[in-house]
Amino acid sequence: MRYKIVLSYDGSYFHGFQRQTKENSIQKTLEDALSSILQEKILIKGAGRTDAGVHAINQVAHFDTKIEMPLHGFREILNKWVMPHIYIKSIEKVDESFHARINVVKKEYRYFVSLNEFDPLKANYLYFFTRPLDIQKIQEALPYFLGTHDFRGFTKNQKLQNTIRTIEKSELTVKDGILSFDFIGDGFMYNMVRIMVALLLRIGEGKNTIEDLQSYFHASNRNEIPYLAPSQGLYLWQVYYKEKNQEQSQ
Amino acid sequence: MRYKIVLSYDGSYFHGFQRQTKENSIQKTLEDALSSILQEKILIKGAGRTDAGVHAINQVAHFDTKIEMPLHGFREILNKWVMPHIYIKSIEKVDESFHARINVVKKEYRYFVSLNEFDPLKANYLYFFTRPLDIQKIQEALPYFLGTHDFRGFTKNQKLQNTIRTIEKSELTVKDGILSFDFIGDGFMYNMVRIMVALLLRIGEGKNTIEDLQSYFHASNRNEIPYLAPSQGLYLWQVYYKEKNQEQSQ
Repeated sequence: MRYKIVLSYDGSYFHGFQRQTKENSIQKTLEDALSSILQEKILIKGAGRTDAGVHAINQVAHFDTKIEMPLHGFREILNKWVMPHIYIKSIEKVDESFHARINVVKKEYRYFVSLNEFDPLKANYLYFFTRPLDIQKIQEALPYFLGTHDFRGFTKNQKLQNTIRTIEKSELTVKDGILSFDFIGDGFMYNMVRIMVALLLRIGEGKNTIEDLQSYFHASNRNEIPYLAPSQGLYLWQVYYKEKNQEQSQ
Repeated sequence: MRYKIVLSYDGSYFHGFQRQTKENSIQKTLEDALSSILQEKILIKGAGRTDAGVHAINQVAHFDTKIEMPLHGFREILNKWVMPHIYIKSIEKVDESFHARINVVKKEYRYFVSLNEFDPLKANYLYFFTRPLDIQKIQEALPYFLGTHDFRGFTKNQKLQNTIRTIEKSELTVKDGILSFDFIGDGFMYNMVRIMVALLLRIGEGKNTIEDLQSYFHASNRNEIPYLAPSQGLYLWQVYYKEKNQEQSQ
C-alpha cells in the first residue's frame, strides 16, 4: 500500500533532499528510518528536491510498503527516528494513483531576507542583507514574474527540455525589517527562486532594472544571469495537489 | 591595553563557552581568531561559562593585547573570523580595572518553552514541552525564588563554598504558546537556571508543589532535585556591571 507523508525539516543539517552516495540527505534519512521500521527496502518519492541548506515547512513524499501500520503509532515511531531536524507532520494511506511528484499542481516557495543587524541564532534561517534597498522598486518588479515565461536563464539545469513555467503569485511583504517573498507557480526549476530573489535584490539596489528582468526571459542560459541568493533564506512552503476532483493544500 | 567585547552566539554549534582540550568552544574560537589577528597569544575572560547548547544574546568578555587596533575595523575583521555562529556586537577599550567576570553585578537568563507542535527549525532554540501544564501554578511558584536563598541543591558543582544567591527577578510571560522565563540574580551556578525551570515545569504538571520548592532551599546536594531542563531553551540574556559610579547594562 501507499503512504503519503507531509514533513518539515531544517535544511542546514542536510546536503539537500536527494539521496547521494555518502552525504547526509533528507531522502536517505527517511529511507533508512522507514527501511528499519518496516524491515524492507523502502524508496521514497518527494514532491521535489530542495538544495543543501534549503528548508521545508510542508514537503510531501510517498512510499510503498507491504506492511500495514496503524497511522498514529507509525508517525510516532518514524518521528523518533528522524527528529529533531526532520519532523513528520502527518502520514496517511493514499490511493496508488497518488504520486508525490507527478500529481503536483503547484508549489509555493518563500524566501526571507533580513535587513536587521546580524543575529547568529538566525544565520541558518534568513539571508542577512546589509546594503541599502529600494523596496518600492522591488514591489514594482515583482508582477513582471507573473504569467507564463521561459525561465531557461533562471536554472543551472541545462538539460531540461521544457523551461516554460507559469507563476501565479509573486509578492513581497515587509515587517520588522524582514522581507518575505512569496512565490506560487506550477513548477520551479533548480535554483530558480534563488536566482529570482537575487535579481529582485539587485533591482532594489539599482544594479538591474525591470527591463533587464524582462530581457532575461529571452536568456539562452544561466550564465546571462549569474546571480544567486543564498540557500538559507529559502523555504519550500506548500505543495498543492488536485485530488478526487477537488484541490487540496498540503 | 584591555578590550571588552559583547557577543551573541548559537550555542548549538559549540561544546560550551569554556575552552576544552579538543572540542569546539566559544572561548577557543575567539582566542584562536584574536591570536591570529593580533599575532600574539590572546586569552579571554568571559563574564561566565555557558554549557553546551546554551545560547547567548549579550555575553561579555575581555582580553589584553599589546596592539592598539582601530575599533570599527577590529570588530569587522574579528567577525569575519568568528561568524556565522558567533557575532561580535561591540568592542571597546576599557580601563584595566574592568574584569568581565569579577565586576559582574548581576546576570539575566531567559528560558523558552514551547507548547506548540514540534518545529524542526526551532529544535535548537526552544524546549518543546508536550504534557499539559497549569500555568497559574507556575506563576504562583515563581516569586518563591525571589530574595536570598541557599541554592546548594540547584547546582551540580559540589565544590562551591558559597551557594547563597540573590534573585531579584523571577517572571514568566506567555505568548503564542511560548513560555518565556526571565531570571535576574547576582549569580547563577552551573545548571542552576535549568534546574529551576525543570522544577517549575514539574509544579505546573502537579508533580511537585511550592512546599517542595521551599524545602529544596535546604537540600544538601543536587541529588535531591534530580531535574534538568534541556540546554537549548536557555539564553544568557544580559550581563550587568557597575562601572564608574553608575550602573550600565551591556
